[in-house]
Amino acid sequence: MSTSKFRGVIPPVVVPDTPDGALDVASYERSLNRMIEAGVDGLFVLGSSGEVVFSTDERREQVIRESVRIIDGRVPVLAGIIDTETERVIEQGKRAQALGVDALVATVPFYALGGPVEHEEHFRILHDELELPIFAYDIPVCVHAKLGWKLLAKLGAEGVLAGVKDSSGDDIGFRYLCQENERLGHPMSVLTGHEIVVDGAYLSGADGSVPGLANVEPEGYVRMWKAAQEGDWATVKAEQDRLNEISHIFDVTSGLTGYAGGVGAFKTALWLMGIFDSNQMPRPVKAMEGENVEAIAQVLRANGLL
Amino acid sequence: MSTSKFRGVIPPVVVPDTPDGALDVASYERSLNRMIEAGVDGLFVLGSSGEVVFSTDERREQVIRESVRIIDGRVPVLAGIIDTETERVIEQGKRAQALGVDALVATVPFYALGGPVEHEEHFRILHDELELPIFAYDIPVCVHAKLGWKLLAKLGAEGVLAGVKDSSGDDIGFRYLCQENERLGHPMSVLTGHEIVVDGAYLSGADGSVPGLANVEPEGYVRMWKAAQEGDWATVKAEQDRLNEISHIFDVTSGLTGYAGGVGAFKTALWLMGIFDSNQMPRPVKAMEGENVEAIAQVLRANGLL
Amino acid sequence: MSTSKFRGVIPPVVVPDTPDGALDVASYERSLNRMIEAGVDGLFVLGSSGEVVFSTDERREQVIRESVRIIDGRVPVLAGIIDTETERVIEQGKRAQALGVDALVATVPFYALGGPVEHEEHFRILHDELELPIFAYDIPVCVHAKLGWKLLAKLGAEGVLAGVKDSSGDDIGFRYLCQENERLGHPMSVLTGHEIVVDGAYLSGADGSVPGLANVEPEGYVRMWKAAQEGDWATVKAEQDRLNEISHIFDVTSGLTGYAGGVGAFKTALWLMGIFDSNQMPRPVKAMEGENVEAIAQVLRANGLL
Amino acid sequence: MSTSKFRGVIPPVVVPDTPDGALDVASYERSLNRMIEAGVDGLFVLGSSGEVVFSTDERREQVIRESVRIIDGRVPVLAGIIDTETERVIEQGKRAQALGVDALVATVPFYALGGPVEHEEHFRILHDELELPIFAYDIPVCVHAKLGWKLLAKLGAEGVLAGVKDSSGDDIGFRYLCQENERLGHPMSVLTGHEIVVDGAYLSGADGSVPGLANVEPEGYVRMWKAAQEGDWATVKAEQDRLNEISHIFDVTSGLTGYAGGVGAFKTALWLMGIFDSNQMPRPVKAMEGENVEAIAQVLRANGLL
Repeated sequence: MSTSKFRGVIPPVVVPDTPDGALDVASYERSLNRMIEAGVDGLFVLGSSGEVVFSTDERREQVIRESVRIIDGRVPVLAGIIDTETERVIEQGKRAQALGVDALVATVPFYALGGPVEHEEHFRILHDELELPIFAYDIPVCVHAKLGWKLLAKLGAEGVLAGVKDSSGDDIGFRYLCQENERLGHPMSVLTGHEIVVDGAYLSGADGSVPGLANVEPEGYVRMWKAAQEGDWATVKAEQDRLNEISHIFDVTSGLTGYAGGVGAFKTALWLMGIFDSNQMPRPVKAMEGENVEAIAQVLRANGLL
Repeated sequence: MSTSKFRGVIPPVVVPDTPDGALDVASYERSLNRMIEAGVDGLFVLGSSGEVVFSTDERREQVIRESVRIIDGRVPVLAGIIDTETERVIEQGKRAQALGVDALVATVPFYALGGPVEHEEHFRILHDELELPIFAYDIPVCVHAKLGWKLLAKLGAEGVLAGVKDSSGDDIGFRYLCQENERLGHPMSVLTGHEIVVDGAYLSGADGSVPGLANVEPEGYVRMWKAAQEGDWATVKAEQDRLNEISHIFDVTSGLTGYAGGVGAFKTALWLMGIFDSNQMPRPVKAMEGENVEAIAQVLRANGLL
Repeated sequence: MSTSKFRGVIPPVVVPDTPDGALDVASYERSLNRMIEAGVDGLFVLGSSGEVVFSTDERREQVIRESVRIIDGRVPVLAGIIDTETERVIEQGKRAQALGVDALVATVPFYALGGPVEHEEHFRILHDELELPIFAYDIPVCVHAKLGWKLLAKLGAEGVLAGVKDSSGDDIGFRYLCQENERLGHPMSVLTGHEIVVDGAYLSGADGSVPGLANVEPEGYVRMWKAAQEGDWATVKAEQDRLNEISHIFDVTSGLTGYAGGVGAFKTALWLMGIFDSNQMPRPVKAMEGENVEAIAQVLRANGLL
Repeated sequence: MSTSKFRGVIPPVVVPDTPDGALDVASYERSLNRMIEAGVDGLFVLGSSGEVVFSTDERREQVIRESVRIIDGRVPVLAGIIDTETERVIEQGKRAQALGVDALVATVPFYALGGPVEHEEHFRILHDELELPIFAYDIPVCVHAKLGWKLLAKLGAEGVLAGVKDSSGDDIGFRYLCQENERLGHPMSVLTGHEIVVDGAYLSGADGSVPGLANVEPEGYVRMWKAAQEGDWATVKAEQDRLNEISHIFDVTSGLTGYAGGVGAFKTALWLMGIFDSNQMPRPVKAMEGENVEAIAQVLRANGLL
């Protein structure tokens, strides 16, 4: 079992915006404190759900600075350093580590096409140029490349990677990765980003989860992790079943694509629940309105969250 | 027919690096001058072939500054302002236009998922926030979304877009776009990036081409454009046939993926031809070596370029 | 230039159904005769547009038998022998050649995953087991594999393939294939299936076209081919422009996916034009109704076909 | 919980061929008996691993006839009725049910493009035209369409579908499907085809599994199912861990694509273990040789199977 401090429930933090696109610090503080008080084990800022690619460098620095101030050492902070290619990622990494986070989360390069040779070289360079532990962020839906479990395990065993945040949707690769990581002495913390099947990932041997839905309902994920630690799989499944009912905020809306429907559902729920002051989205994405808002409200009501 | 100043042969400029990763200004000057002397009608800097996503903001500024200095008004300069989402693209655009380029080339957002609603809003915001003419860069292989010809034509007719640089590989959409653009009074300059089928694109009604291979052999593309202007289609085809023989530098190498094989072939050819001082690639991509270099040399020799 | 008898305009024949799903022989005869009288150079039956995969073996035999009877040697008949894997394709091929067609058109295997090794072996086996000339049908949208031009050219040079029917949407691969086929002495007849960009394909060196839209408007494609033979590229382009206006029958409907919108548009147009007695589609596809029919009628009217 | 007789471990049966491509009945009988004696709960013949798309109609009938004869009622028999479109699938279904199987397994149409409207209509027609219970076979890697869990659940609730065989690799959709099926009173038997993550699928609520690897090692899957029934999740995971070590027969070979490497690994293992008389593959696929065979032998030896 991992002795990493990066284990358990580590939500990817959703970011509230003011109507003119600035960071809504008061709402942000409310949301972070709520998750910490619910017992989460860490927080992942500037992830895909955290508007990282929508944020200018200045905005990214503000998000990290405010996060570090608010969290104040209560839980570890992981920061996404997402950018197109190695030199740019290094710059993001240097800025993030200067601001006091605990670990860095990087994808493989995107936009320009590459393959496993470039992926491996990329992580090796990041490891050489940066000080903090590095998590590989495996998210093919965004970067259009899948990291193979054999490469990840090798980089873990050599100390290049401290962990993996898996948002690949490939439960088979994830299963092999957990098993190989164990065989190698468990050098990495392997985290699942698939909030709907965290139960299966825990049974597979995951060291924790990075569930976006924990922004909306952190307690359930905290209880699920505790039950998994105790081997109480019936409770693990029951908690997942209940969380999945809430997750229908993703599929009751219509006319929305990608980010607008996904992160838009989180923001709209947090706004309806009084945690965010608005459901403002970053440009060029529009905030949900009308029937879509009502559809989300109904899911929240049906699950006792409104 | 378009009266745009952005027509004809507008190569996407390949960038030489020194062994320690800096911009090799002397080689760069040699290559730009060579293309201008061959008669190209414009130059597109910081395109996908121009290492835009590999370049830090500082490096991007250096590339633009040196390009503007070297080109010195002899032909129009288009600059890529490629970044993940709208606010970041605006920043790239403001920096580029402050440095004296003539037009800006922007893709749709990438990494985060969006759809036509976000694409349209994105270009409208860029048009509002930036001063220079904007070209839509349609390159699904990099951004994983295809711009529909109906949306492009609409944005052209409304003055939001000054043109399209098509690297989509969708010759049907391109054909419809040219035809619709003509029907609307030809508001846009429609350029093809598909260096292998420029002949078909010209017959389709394209206003010009953006051929990476023109870094290696600009004269052929210049002759092809002149022949197309004169309706001499037999010559257009013959020039394309000849250029395609040179283009086999893309398919005679082995063991390379994406950028390493594509832009790597350009750099290796330019190095072998004495225009670049090395075939250095940007991190994490490795430069071609050994048999791959020899395979490219053979293609160049067979076509009289060595 | 090819001396093949399989050159020029060879429409993929759309098949009319009666309301209870039988072959509507009278409508079929009307449509075939109309295309032959317009001057087409061949007919391709049981292609993707010809309901081949919707048809039982008995129905396929009926379609071929009626086609051979109606066409009666006036033009060559190519028959699709589409099935999942080699042994099944051989069976389809043996049945087709027993019924008197002139050439066979086969895709690579589909459903089960394979690669270039299996593709090459597949065509070699077909060539060994069947008597008639074999065309490779390159249609990745249906079989989810793209045939490389190097493999096709090799199989052509060895006499395994008599030609290629390209519906790949890859104009670059097509350009290389035409050029390589020429270099090898033109062993194959290379036909394009992309009805919207036949002009570019002819300039690329195609030996003919297989345009579904020629079911609706054969004369335009016949004139375009003649103009191409005479090197009159302005007329080639003008004919393509005009045909493309008619092709908007594909994009004025809504709520339809794939076959329902594509072949459905052909059938609805032919029905509105009085050539087919209905626009019946094969199960499980529904025929167009209401506003979609009206939208197609408007396109036909605007182009003088109604 | 399901009261269906189609639950538990139902291996998709791998088929042995003689060197000249005939069904090797003696080997087949050996393999089926071995699985039944190990305690499997059903057998799925003519699945994707069972060479269904490689088999002529005559061969399919032979496989079903021999299967029914050998199995002789000891466990239920499900038969794949895989073909391109509805009318052809109906024909396959009628032939199969005439031969005495217990249920039919059908994919959505493939080759021609369709969408959810066609998928729903397809299953409704199959239900109307056939007598036996129908399982939807969700296998996007082969048919290039994913069945949505909402549609599947609806068809289950209406009695159109008796179950689902999920080979989609979408553990999230599977999780939702199991949960919705439960909410609707468990009308369907929901089976996972993902042999590597059966543990997670059982925790998700699956009614059973269809693991190809059970051809090689049936006992492990039988023990895993029993442990799951008893809620002994530690044993479930441990059995899966052990089976996954054997599953490396998939990833120790090189130079093979798709079927050649996947089903080829099963056949080679069964041949090395003395159950099959050869590792012959169906045309155009080649059997494994040399180092690949040795690599598989090593995995088997390391896991005590040789």
